[in-house]
Amino acid sequence: MEKKVSGNMLIAQSGGPSMVINQSLAGAVLEAKKHKEIKTIIGAVHGIKGILAEDLVNMGKETKENLLKIAATPSSALGTVRKKPTADDCKKIFGVLHKYGVRYFFYIGGNDSAETVHIINSEARKKNYELRCFHIPKTIDNDLRENDHTPGFGSAARFVACALMGDNLDNRALPGVKIDIIMGRHAGFLTAASALGRVYKDDGPHLIYLPERPFSLKKFVDDVKKVYKKFGRCVVAVSEGISDSKGAPIASKFIKEVDAHGNAQLSGSGALGDLLAAEIKAKTSISRVRADTFGYIQRSFPGVVSDVDASEARAVGIAAVKTALSGDIDGSIAIRRRKGKKYSVYYERVPLKNVAKETKEMPSNFISRSGNDVTRAFIEYAAPIVGKLPEISRIRAYPVAKRK
Amino acid sequence: MEKKVSGNMLIAQSGGPSMVINQSLAGAVLEAKKHKEIKTIIGAVHGIKGILAEDLVNMGKETKENLLKIAATPSSALGTVRKKPTADDCKKIFGVLHKYGVRYFFYIGGNDSAETVHIINSEARKKNYELRCFHIPKTIDNDLRENDHTPGFGSAARFVACALMGDNLDNRALPGVKIDIIMGRHAGFLTAASALGRVYKDDGPHLIYLPERPFSLKKFVDDVKKVYKKFGRCVVAVSEGISDSKGAPIASKFIKEVDAHGNAQLSGSGALGDLLAAEIKAKTSISRVRADTFGYIQRSFPGVVSDVDASEARAVGIAAVKTALSGDIDGSIAIRRRKGKKYSVYYERVPLKNVAKETKEMPSNFISRSGNDVTRAFIEYAAPIVGKLPEISRIRAYPVAKRK
Repeated sequence: MEKKVSGNMLIAQSGGPSMVINQSLAGAVLEAKKHKEIKTIIGAVHGIKGILAEDLVNMGKETKENLLKIAATPSSALGTVRKKPTADDCKKIFGVLHKYGVRYFFYIGGNDSAETVHIINSEARKKNYELRCFHIPKTIDNDLRENDHTPGFGSAARFVACALMGDNLDNRALPGVKIDIIMGRHAGFLTAASALGRVYKDDGPHLIYLPERPFSLKKFVDDVKKVYKKFGRCVVAVSEGISDSKGAPIASKFIKEVDAHGNAQLSGSGALGDLLAAEIKAKTSISRVRADTFGYIQRSFPGVVSDVDASEARAVGIAAVKTALSGDIDGSIAIRRRKGKKYSVYYERVPLKNVAKETKEMPSNFISRSGNDVTRAFIEYAAPIVGKLPEISRIRAYPVAKRK
Repeated sequence: MEKKVSGNMLIAQSGGPSMVINQSLAGAVLEAKKHKEIKTIIGAVHGIKGILAEDLVNMGKETKENLLKIAATPSSALGTVRKKPTADDCKKIFGVLHKYGVRYFFYIGGNDSAETVHIINSEARKKNYELRCFHIPKTIDNDLRENDHTPGFGSAARFVACALMGDNLDNRALPGVKIDIIMGRHAGFLTAASALGRVYKDDGPHLIYLPERPFSLKKFVDDVKKVYKKFGRCVVAVSEGISDSKGAPIASKFIKEVDAHGNAQLSGSGALGDLLAAEIKAKTSISRVRADTFGYIQRSFPGVVSDVDASEARAVGIAAVKTALSGDIDGSIAIRRRKGKKYSVYYERVPLKNVAKETKEMPSNFISRSGNDVTRAFIEYAAPIVGKLPEISRIRAYPVAKRK
């Protein structure tokens, strides 16, 4: 293989949008513009769907000014897709890349997207076609292997932390039981980030339920009763992916629709929250019980971006293009954290198969032994990624002497 | 009556929290500290519940530094209450005020709170007890009479506008039908604010349903079909308070719980959104249909405050104290907008009965003739209250020529 290969580049976005996925897009395109080996910079609309339909746009013609504005815009500017390509699709995709003289292929997404890149890469190798194939990491779920954390997580976690900070204040002002359902099918990182919103010792979320630990409705009711007895109120953060001891999602008992991957549709429905609230109402004498499901705004809300997340998302896009031009032919860019007190990261190429398919869960040392909270280790891990949160305060509540 | 009366002050918060209700609290307390006529500045915990229970704190002892931090903290720092006092309660409340030497009474809240102040004021007059009774306006619903708009609305509206801006981008990237349920039982102002999130011509929300216009499920399905046919996607903003042609809330057919005022609990449940999504799924062939209910975070989220709203909320707290000391004995502070191109407001004392009890709805000139959108007049009205929104951009999508 030659160290430098000349040709066109194709970039696309996949999976659920995030607040910073366009940082990676802009980073890659801006970097690519600097290199003469890269000719036309093509964007595919709606991921592999756009490649298959040859629905392609010229990203090289976008001005730097507009690319920087797009970088700061949430969601996937090129459009995205949930489609999992078949082996036949991958052959067709390779055919399109070949036809358009593409020598540099970048796909921004999660583990499924990494798998797609992996298959297309194998196809290119089989055909002896020089194609630099890169996966650029993105997922608010923070469940990609090899990565200390993933672009998109920090900003979604910031939204969740702020939401719980506010909701805890709301619940303190108007006490009752409040249940908040947070995204995350298999990994509890995003739900765990709710703990970052705590400032005072008695702040909620008082209970945090993660997909990594079996969920029991009975234990849940007991936990809530205990907290309510202690504080006269209870704020609960629940992952949409909580499952029973057999691994069956609690929500799936109530939600019928499945997505292209055969998974029950957990987001975009209030069913799980309503179920849990109904259970508390039925099994306790607590009168004020409410549930909110944060839904899609936790991944797309503008103006609540983590600066660290935004800059890292830009950096992985740049790193992917630089690495592709350095002679390496394929891989995924992983975020690694340096040891030491001060937060610092570096980016490293890892084999596609190491991030494709399987995901990772929260490590045990991030989950409290009780199974309904996170540990200090998690807080220390997540805080620098999420950034400084808004400052809040309480009245000191100096008592007024009772009069007769 | 003497022009100046010396004595203690009592202040409390009522009704649903907002992001800026503590600005009014801090404004009133900081202003009161400047006046020698006001002796002890008492705060009642959880509104009239705290007055009745004599659960009182000394707000005068709070430092200026902490009061300014509290001002920037969402939700009601003193705690709040949804209790509607009986005539007997009001007599008891007056008894407590009398016992604690209170000559200045300030109650921050909506129309129900204004009514409470009005009754307590009548009680004081009957007893010939000099009590300066003031209502300080607050409601995210923006439905207080006499006011151009109310403190709390601008920030909640900013949250809704940002949420829809992000959700529209999400829906554009991953097309389908997306339904967002927004707070507002009788007044559609907050739902209408979703329109402020539009930047491009084809941006959602494409449909806006308000409590001010009768809602028909059939018309709703037809509207969605039409938009979906045109754009291949559809974002819908729906007020939780939408009602049928007989005035019965759509949600009440599915939600059983009622609050202290006899109204169905609309927030803290995903039922209405799930119902509307199910209807679209059943009556169309659109496969991707999702609903989110924004819930309580739209009134308590930290960091999405409108600067104009925050400063006006502070100002009404200050104005109430100044007015109470100027010799007027009772009233509510209303926000008035000056005529002219540049946004500017002033504050005026209005009689309690003018804001108590009845609320106002969105005027007809703010609602499109089709009944499923807002007008330019509404956008011009709301934009300065909400403030400048985050800037977003799109790719220009220069086409790539198809290859054979």
